[in-house]
Amino acid sequence: MTATWRDTAVTQLLGVRLPIIAAPMAGGPSTPALVAAVSEAGGLGVLGCGYDSPDRIRAAIAEVRRLTDKPFGVNLFVPTPVEIDDTAVAAALAALEPFAAAYDLDIALTPPFAEDFDAQLEVILDERVDMFSFTFGVPSYNALAALRGAGIAVCGTATSLAEAVALQQTGGVDAVCLQGTEAGGHRGGFIGAPEDSLVGIETLVSEVRSAVDLPLIAAGGIMDGRGIAAALVGGADAAQLGTAFLRCPEAGTSAPYRAALETARDTDTVITKAFSGRAARGVRNALSEALADVPVPPYPVMNALTRELRRRAAAAGDSSVLSLWAGHGVAAGRALPALKLVITLASETDVAFTRTHGEGR
Amino acid sequence: MTATWRDTAVTQLLGVRLPIIAAPMAGGPSTPALVAAVSEAGGLGVLGCGYDSPDRIRAAIAEVRRLTDKPFGVNLFVPTPVEIDDTAVAAALAALEPFAAAYDLDIALTPPFAEDFDAQLEVILDERVDMFSFTFGVPSYNALAALRGAGIAVCGTATSLAEAVALQQTGGVDAVCLQGTEAGGHRGGFIGAPEDSLVGIETLVSEVRSAVDLPLIAAGGIMDGRGIAAALVGGADAAQLGTAFLRCPEAGTSAPYRAALETARDTDTVITKAFSGRAARGVRNALSEALADVPVPPYPVMNALTRELRRRAAAAGDSSVLSLWAGHGVAAGRALPALKLVITLASETDVAFTRTHGEGR
Repeated sequence: MTATWRDTAVTQLLGVRLPIIAAPMAGGPSTPALVAAVSEAGGLGVLGCGYDSPDRIRAAIAEVRRLTDKPFGVNLFVPTPVEIDDTAVAAALAALEPFAAAYDLDIALTPPFAEDFDAQLEVILDERVDMFSFTFGVPSYNALAALRGAGIAVCGTATSLAEAVALQQTGGVDAVCLQGTEAGGHRGGFIGAPEDSLVGIETLVSEVRSAVDLPLIAAGGIMDGRGIAAALVGGADAAQLGTAFLRCPEAGTSAPYRAALETARDTDTVITKAFSGRAARGVRNALSEALADVPVPPYPVMNALTRELRRRAAAAGDSSVLSLWAGHGVAAGRALPALKLVITLASETDVAFTRTHGEGR
Repeated sequence: MTATWRDTAVTQLLGVRLPIIAAPMAGGPSTPALVAAVSEAGGLGVLGCGYDSPDRIRAAIAEVRRLTDKPFGVNLFVPTPVEIDDTAVAAALAALEPFAAAYDLDIALTPPFAEDFDAQLEVILDERVDMFSFTFGVPSYNALAALRGAGIAVCGTATSLAEAVALQQTGGVDAVCLQGTEAGGHRGGFIGAPEDSLVGIETLVSEVRSAVDLPLIAAGGIMDGRGIAAALVGGADAAQLGTAFLRCPEAGTSAPYRAALETARDTDTVITKAFSGRAARGVRNALSEALADVPVPPYPVMNALTRELRRRAAAAGDSSVLSLWAGHGVAAGRALPALKLVITLASETDVAFTRTHGEGR
């Protein structure tokens, strides 16, 4: 009985042993070492390359391949139009001023704000990675077809039933990653305001399972084998965990970020646009509190405005102005090597299934 | 295999056949007919009596007993101090004025704002119902001991790990109901601001399971057998469903409320204090939008201010100023008789377990 949960539509699609995916965590945490360790353990590691130049993406892929010959994935952000609203920029600058002053920093808005998506995508296609996942929107049908034609499993991100149905209707994706409200980091949706699309993962998986005939990956708040088992029983074909991997030694999580994760409780996260201009969940801190009601400019403009401030704060060990992305399960994070964590998760999942069916508790 | 999920610490505690509880929905929906039908089907129906006078509670209990000899429960609100903040009352009155004018209503603040909790509790004790659950706080140890001494199973409500641990530490509760952020209606917590304690149910169940050694009831966003199975595998001993029962013919849900439920989507609910002064989740409407940023007075003062307006709106079939409590799963609601719904839920739970373990999908 305990073996069967491993064999799902997602493990078949990706050619992996375990329906356990390490979420792409752009901006540092998802290093090639973390991705390779998860894939070596039988799960699927995914590089979060949304902020990276094509050259850096190519180098990261090469590094993963140096460390493992197992399948792995890459995630990118689908671009949204850049609109510079001078009023919002001024409001953001005014709110950021006290924080910038502490670092003797004069914040300037300097383009480019984001990397060239088409050039990033070219690398994915060229390198023929095993899986490509995307967030914040939907690439063109032609782009999706080219990726699938190259043998790459393509996975879209949905935060509501409507988005999951829209992804299926493109006819261009192999699987849907469902991001529950619990999830840390950026909201990945694309219909309506991301901050209004905050559905609990269990509810989201079940409603989408009834309407969408694609393999489903559940993400949000999953920290252990009980959560993985619940996602699978609830209708998903795999579980994707991000926050659970943030404290692994292989993760590129900065020292002040790690320190904040160690003491955060389940009620300490908040949805904020203070760091990037796009709704994301992280541990509440001074910057998210100070900018809670400021009408900041949208991503990627706000992201560019706070970039240097965040870099200096990380270097100074100051978590008060860092984006401390984390999900509802943050308090259950474990500082284990990634390979050991994946093995532990699989073993806990076995136990969760056995307990409910066999000897009781 | 499919039989064993029915036998849990909660079914043993309550003496019922199924670990399926119909949530107490005060203010109308949880009629004696609904409660009795759920209990007849093998689950546990729970009267939501927070707003009711002792006489009305006694009458409702008698009516359930006329309809069934099966176990059932009663839920009450633990009182919080009544503070009348004139500034907040004035702000609320100003914001409510356009809505009141449409009904030619002159809103006045007239005590008493809430029923006498001790007198309500006296009825529970006297009637020796099978299960008593409470929200918004924790009754005194003496009160809990008296209830348990009378053979009543006592269940507290927690929205975070800290609250669940606090309930265990009282030494006075038999089970903990965990309310995830997905849940419709009032937030039941008591540590910190209820609107800041919004943890997804899967995460909440797993973290509490690791720390608390009491039977756990999972509530929030559960609408079908997949959700029940996920809750049980995830570490709960029973699932509590509210929104799933709102459209049953036996429920006291008003006609305009039902109409709103029929068209609501997963992203249409919002946490609001606009109706009662206490954070609650419901379908977004004109009143919740208009009062989103108004610093209204706390429960029960705000509840008293909007009471007559809501009564008139319900009578007029106007959902724009009604509290349309509902959870994330609102779109998956079914207009089935309660007995049939419980039987369907049990059958779906069987299927969910079989699919994950046996023949795959």
